[in-house]
Amino acid sequence: MPRQAPGSKVFTVLALADHHHLRGLVARRAQSMQEELQANPSAHPFSEVLALCDYPHLLDRSETSFMFSSDAITRAQEILGVIPGKTTGGYSHCQGIEGLRDAIAAGIASRDGLPSYSEDIFLTDGAAAPVHMIMHLLIRGQKDGILCPIPSHSLYTDSMVLRGATLVPYYLDESRGWRVNISDLKKQLDDARSNGIAVRGLVVVNPGNPTGQVLVEEDQCEIVELCKNEGLVLLADEVYQENIYTDEKKFNSFKKVARSIGYGEGDISLVSFHSVSNGYYGECGRRGGYMEVTGFSSEVRKEVYKVASLSSCSNISGQILMSLVMNPPKVGDESYPSYRAERDSILSSLSCCAEAMVSTFNSLEGMTCSKAEGGISVFPSVQLPPQVIEAAEAMNTEPDVFYALRLLESTGIVVVPGSVFGQVPGTWHFRCTILPQEEKTQLMISRFKAFHKAFMEEF
Amino acid sequence: MPRQAPGSKVFTVLALADHHHLRGLVARRAQSMQEELQANPSAHPFSEVLALCDYPHLLDRSETSFMFSSDAITRAQEILGVIPGKTTGGYSHCQGIEGLRDAIAAGIASRDGLPSYSEDIFLTDGAAAPVHMIMHLLIRGQKDGILCPIPSHSLYTDSMVLRGATLVPYYLDESRGWRVNISDLKKQLDDARSNGIAVRGLVVVNPGNPTGQVLVEEDQCEIVELCKNEGLVLLADEVYQENIYTDEKKFNSFKKVARSIGYGEGDISLVSFHSVSNGYYGECGRRGGYMEVTGFSSEVRKEVYKVASLSSCSNISGQILMSLVMNPPKVGDESYPSYRAERDSILSSLSCCAEAMVSTFNSLEGMTCSKAEGGISVFPSVQLPPQVIEAAEAMNTEPDVFYALRLLESTGIVVVPGSVFGQVPGTWHFRCTILPQEEKTQLMISRFKAFHKAFMEEF
Repeated sequence: MPRQAPGSKVFTVLALADHHHLRGLVARRAQSMQEELQANPSAHPFSEVLALCDYPHLLDRSETSFMFSSDAITRAQEILGVIPGKTTGGYSHCQGIEGLRDAIAAGIASRDGLPSYSEDIFLTDGAAAPVHMIMHLLIRGQKDGILCPIPSHSLYTDSMVLRGATLVPYYLDESRGWRVNISDLKKQLDDARSNGIAVRGLVVVNPGNPTGQVLVEEDQCEIVELCKNEGLVLLADEVYQENIYTDEKKFNSFKKVARSIGYGEGDISLVSFHSVSNGYYGECGRRGGYMEVTGFSSEVRKEVYKVASLSSCSNISGQILMSLVMNPPKVGDESYPSYRAERDSILSSLSCCAEAMVSTFNSLEGMTCSKAEGGISVFPSVQLPPQVIEAAEAMNTEPDVFYALRLLESTGIVVVPGSVFGQVPGTWHFRCTILPQEEKTQLMISRFKAFHKAFMEEF
Repeated sequence: MPRQAPGSKVFTVLALADHHHLRGLVARRAQSMQEELQANPSAHPFSEVLALCDYPHLLDRSETSFMFSSDAITRAQEILGVIPGKTTGGYSHCQGIEGLRDAIAAGIASRDGLPSYSEDIFLTDGAAAPVHMIMHLLIRGQKDGILCPIPSHSLYTDSMVLRGATLVPYYLDESRGWRVNISDLKKQLDDARSNGIAVRGLVVVNPGNPTGQVLVEEDQCEIVELCKNEGLVLLADEVYQENIYTDEKKFNSFKKVARSIGYGEGDISLVSFHSVSNGYYGECGRRGGYMEVTGFSSEVRKEVYKVASLSSCSNISGQILMSLVMNPPKVGDESYPSYRAERDSILSSLSCCAEAMVSTFNSLEGMTCSKAEGGISVFPSVQLPPQVIEAAEAMNTEPDVFYALRLLESTGIVVVPGSVFGQVPGTWHFRCTILPQEEKTQLMISRFKAFHKAFMEEF
């Protein structure tokens, strides 16, 4: 069957970074990670609640009390109680079911020790959807720019490319553990403006992805100050807020930081993104997420609402799961011990694995790797000899892609080349997710060591 | 707390039709309709399968065989078998889980009696997401145009506005039961081109929304011919393919029509949209949908894939439900009788309700209404006296909005004014969904009659 067709002529070719095949590999890796996370679904009280909400008939059956934990049953009844029609099959308000937004606002309030309002919550299909919505509203065209960290997850850069905006990059400072360099940030802003770019927003990812740093509060304060003084909308990617692996630092939401230095609704426009795809639960496939939108006028609110209403509403199971994630089982609940055990073991495995990888990478010739303070990956740098750069050029690819593909071929280990995320020109990195199973980690590490040694000897 | 904030200044104000409060009402109406559809969830085998897939642990329990129908259990096992990791919690391939796409392709193939390929299927969060994706790829800017029926669901017009495209409207012919007037369609195309608009696609909605007509095959053939000869991408909204209420007509997919007149992959670029939000199942809240993409070059395919990959993947429960909808229980399955009974009763209720409404509207002063051949709504026209038009002007609103709001206030009945969907200037309509419960229908009809009589007497 001929695959050539008239459609070719009338389509726009996107200038998206052309590494989607590699991202596909990462998606599969993420998936197998999910498999590990969910090896024992019965230990996962969230799934119990979702099943009961999907098929409420179960709640009328006596057998159910033997098959589900009592708090899962209670929670399902509470949730169905706040869903009009008591079914997950209906549309919801385009911001999401109000009762679930109330629960999420309550979870945010207890996290920050500050009020949060359900009217500020927009429940979404994962975290990508709300990012695209906000970018759409922020960006009018090529002359509009958004400050975005480099390296960063390509969601933000792709979303800008899709809307024809100008990316205004600010490089994270690898020499200081990927901290934000505020003076460089200001310089990039000024340079962009002097080039006629209307800079309208600033993306910040905390904990970092792929870089795994947790921002220090003083940097967060300076970022907030900058956004206030320069009238920038602060887009805070806070999807890894549960994944912190260091005692020296804790997660502070940008909302909390802004309020702590006395800035209220009227001072700064802030959007915080979260999703169920991350954290210790890692329920990527559920496509649950939210954005908390604060500091916007009612006019802008209306526009956000309009864009949100274009996709009717996000999937109800994802909405429910997001509300569960922000209000996990509590001490005394039947499922609390299994929940707590699962959570702690996943987080400690992630932490151990990260430590093992970081020390491994730092032990290898030509490699350095910052501590993984949070997030789900590390981003080591690797010095590649001139022969590798020539070999890559000969293959018409980037040296880090060359390295990643060679690694994949000879070990089956998937890493994503740094050029996918952006890096200081002339430096090479890769993103390596931190797997939760120690035994696999050891195997992966020994394979990696052998590969790297052989690779460096070959070139 | 002040709601005024700096964010106001930096946001684009969208030119979306400003009727979202009214659409909100419709959404709630749709929701209460869901409640009716799902009054008896145990009669809904789809929910059983979803619950089992969400919490696979159930499959290991002996009690499960007493609580779920045997085919639901088998289906859940089959589905989990094709999901890597056997969990709904993981990411999938960005087009959706291959095994589910195979099932959907098989469902399409048996519907059309033609081959369908899983590589052509993109599983999506509802039908809005893929429409936005394709519009994004089709539209480069203001000089690009898309032919769109008027009246039509605002998804298409809003999606064009969002991307700054030029809407090229073609009016459906109310005098011929909302048929497509091909010569007018050609005229609109030529006029747009002579005004320097590059027309790149044609939207067709079959069965119609809000107009409820089922296209006749000869019109479908002419539409296909036009798209082939003019190099237009045909965007076929086929989400109501299961909702046909007349024996004189049947649903023909545009793919089937194109192939029947000898056009293959190389001749016409066609995208067919479907979702689980419609049909007799009406699972709006699940956000399941797909687009079948045929007749595009591999280059364009790559671009579609890139855009799809930006939102990682659609929610897995929605993917599963879409595969179930395209492969419902079969004769011999334990759940077949209840499935079939539910399906038939819903479809016959919709049909009876539609007939009752149409005859009511046609019996009223100044109103006419075309037969509801399919879809989920009727779109009667109402002649409004000059006094109403003045009263509306005085309230700075449209006459049909004035009518709809008065109806809502005095009866609680929600209809959506025709100006939301577009209508021939100087004519006034409203969209009325066809509810499944006859007794409610009778109540609604008597209330409506009383209101309309009083309204006409008042003005």
